[in-house]
Amino acid sequence: MSTPNNRRPDLSIDGSRLRRRFEELNEIGATDRGGVNRPALSDANKETRDTLVTWFCDAGLDVRIDEMGNIFARREGTDDRAPVLAGSHVDSQYNGGRYDGVVGVLGALEVVETLDDAGVETYRPVEVVVWTNEEGVRFQPDMLGSGVYTGQFDREYAYDRTDKSGDRFGDELERIGYRGETACVADDPYCYFELHVEQGPYLSERDLSVGVVEGVYGFSWLNARFTGAADHAGPTPMHLRTDALVATADVIQAVRRLTAATGTDLVGTVGSVDVSPNSINVIPEEVELTLDLRSYDNGTVDDAVEQIEREMAWAGEREGADWDLEEIMRVDAMPFDEDCTATVEAAAEAVGAEYMRMVSGAGHDANYLNEICPTSMIFVPSEGGVSHTEDEYTEWEDVVVGTDVLLQAMLAKSEER
Amino acid sequence: MSTPNNRRPDLSIDGSRLRRRFEELNEIGATDRGGVNRPALSDANKETRDTLVTWFCDAGLDVRIDEMGNIFARREGTDDRAPVLAGSHVDSQYNGGRYDGVVGVLGALEVVETLDDAGVETYRPVEVVVWTNEEGVRFQPDMLGSGVYTGQFDREYAYDRTDKSGDRFGDELERIGYRGETACVADDPYCYFELHVEQGPYLSERDLSVGVVEGVYGFSWLNARFTGAADHAGPTPMHLRTDALVATADVIQAVRRLTAATGTDLVGTVGSVDVSPNSINVIPEEVELTLDLRSYDNGTVDDAVEQIEREMAWAGEREGADWDLEEIMRVDAMPFDEDCTATVEAAAEAVGAEYMRMVSGAGHDANYLNEICPTSMIFVPSEGGVSHTEDEYTEWEDVVVGTDVLLQAMLAKSEER
Repeated sequence: MSTPNNRRPDLSIDGSRLRRRFEELNEIGATDRGGVNRPALSDANKETRDTLVTWFCDAGLDVRIDEMGNIFARREGTDDRAPVLAGSHVDSQYNGGRYDGVVGVLGALEVVETLDDAGVETYRPVEVVVWTNEEGVRFQPDMLGSGVYTGQFDREYAYDRTDKSGDRFGDELERIGYRGETACVADDPYCYFELHVEQGPYLSERDLSVGVVEGVYGFSWLNARFTGAADHAGPTPMHLRTDALVATADVIQAVRRLTAATGTDLVGTVGSVDVSPNSINVIPEEVELTLDLRSYDNGTVDDAVEQIEREMAWAGEREGADWDLEEIMRVDAMPFDEDCTATVEAAAEAVGAEYMRMVSGAGHDANYLNEICPTSMIFVPSEGGVSHTEDEYTEWEDVVVGTDVLLQAMLAKSEER
Repeated sequence: MSTPNNRRPDLSIDGSRLRRRFEELNEIGATDRGGVNRPALSDANKETRDTLVTWFCDAGLDVRIDEMGNIFARREGTDDRAPVLAGSHVDSQYNGGRYDGVVGVLGALEVVETLDDAGVETYRPVEVVVWTNEEGVRFQPDMLGSGVYTGQFDREYAYDRTDKSGDRFGDELERIGYRGETACVADDPYCYFELHVEQGPYLSERDLSVGVVEGVYGFSWLNARFTGAADHAGPTPMHLRTDALVATADVIQAVRRLTAATGTDLVGTVGSVDVSPNSINVIPEEVELTLDLRSYDNGTVDDAVEQIEREMAWAGEREGADWDLEEIMRVDAMPFDEDCTATVEAAAEAVGAEYMRMVSGAGHDANYLNEICPTSMIFVPSEGGVSHTEDEYTEWEDVVVGTDVLLQAMLAKSEER
């Protein structure tokens, strides 16, 4: 594949500088087991933000913080045009990993500094962005910062989210000093790139350094409930039982069977089960369960939801239990902008990365950005597919290659008229 | 069957008086939905106790309260011999039923008053007993009062039990004024009878008034755990999952299958399931579950436990999950004293009750009493087998017939030399 003129194959990022920043940032909120604990708007999250803002200012970037605490750091272009935006998030899961989000923010900063070091002027401005509350572990829903920025949620809705202690998102944002002045509305970026760990095993299984992400799985989230009869586990004969948990077991197995039976990319998970009364000697009266069904094909998700509805009915009838199934969230599969994806692929070619085109099973801030501007993502491997835990690990060479791909992709887009 | 000489077929209890007491007692802690909420050592439990003590004293009985709050109310016999003991409990489940326990205590009081009204003198003393903390919903384990009385537990162990608020059993007993002076040790009762609702469906299904209870199921309680790997429900392909909940579903179904496959009286229940992290989009990493396996044949319980161990291993291997199974309690099946049971059966014949011999699936204070003196039980129907809920219901005529059986059984034993 030919390298467009506005790419600079001679440029590459400084992997050592990136590594030093990576290690320094991850001292904040570090856990004994090698992870980080920096949920959104925590003290550790504030400290991470402060460090980043210092680095952005040291790099001569123009920093602005919006009403949602999203941080934008701008390197001007030769023309006052819509900027090339790139970044990710630095909030973490509770006791999460060191790569998730961090790689994308520090990678974008590294790109900017590489341009500075090489004295490269770009036609378009280049901006680094840090999105607030991507993980959604402390405040639900997730991707709240990019969600408000792209018009998915109202700012006031976001401010009113509370964590388990009852603390409001808006109050906590104020408390850590990151309720900024800039209005949180999309200011028409030219395009958006996000470098991120894969959080799945495909790259690691294939020993590849880079995933060129052409889209994100769609999914259905469902709440289900079986209602049977609570009776004493001793004197109640088997033939008179209506055990909500037995019906639930049928559905857990049906989900597993379904993913094998469809011959598609469908994945399905029963992630939570709440039993009532949940006592060793009482037959379960009510079970609430959740289902997560995903595919890159919306029709496959439709079919899976329909089949699960039948399975609920069958399991309910078999056990004599009442049942209820409600879809609480539905997100269509989202192909990223093909031109942006091609730009990432060309960049991967240019840096000689071992790469594959792939689809993301997880959602990212990039999903929302894709609604308002051309977007694509660059994945680097998660060893063993492990993420959201302290064991999350990516070979450093892969982070360097992924950041080089980000550099070339941003350069390419920053020269487009 | 012939009526022994020391029975008085002309005597019968006063169903109206019993009914008045039943209604009055159940005003205490009454719930909107027709049940009662009087967990052990609650204010409502204290009020119930106070009312009973007043009634016992009004009936001229000699009341003593032991260190565990067990209440004994004695009607002297013509000789100072070991007494015929009868009673049950008046603590309830949270929002439990009106019959569970209450019927056995008020039935025994009604027997005493019937003897008084008819001027019957008995050779042996007759005692009414109210056991503390039978239900075990506030303080575990259950049957704590009869357990200490019969030497199953130390008094200090019982005192140190705490409820979910951290309140100690001993302190709460003191608070409600029922930490009595009498030592809580078995004082060699001649025999023990307990009238109780069946809490199962067998009598109600067969339209019988009385169950002559010849023993109690044995059981095994097991804690089990599967440990898999928590991964993101989106990007983790099905072939790389180790889902602790899928393995659990296998075991839930194995328990159900096992009860059908053995061709025995085995009943099996998975009553509680706790999933971690229990999140809609995270593959379950760890599931803790409990199992309850019961039969009147100890070998059948042994076999079931062994089979469940195999099922755990199979489910673990299938899913690649680690597993762990621990028996936390084992109670052998307990045949009641055959002579006592025959006495109850003869009493049922004498009063013309429609009855069957049967086995209890649930444990009762009678289990512990059977360890120290000849014991049997009389069941009256639970409509639809329902118990431990506000819907618990027994036809009043059946309560009357059951109490008449108790009267004749106690009379018979009270004349034995």
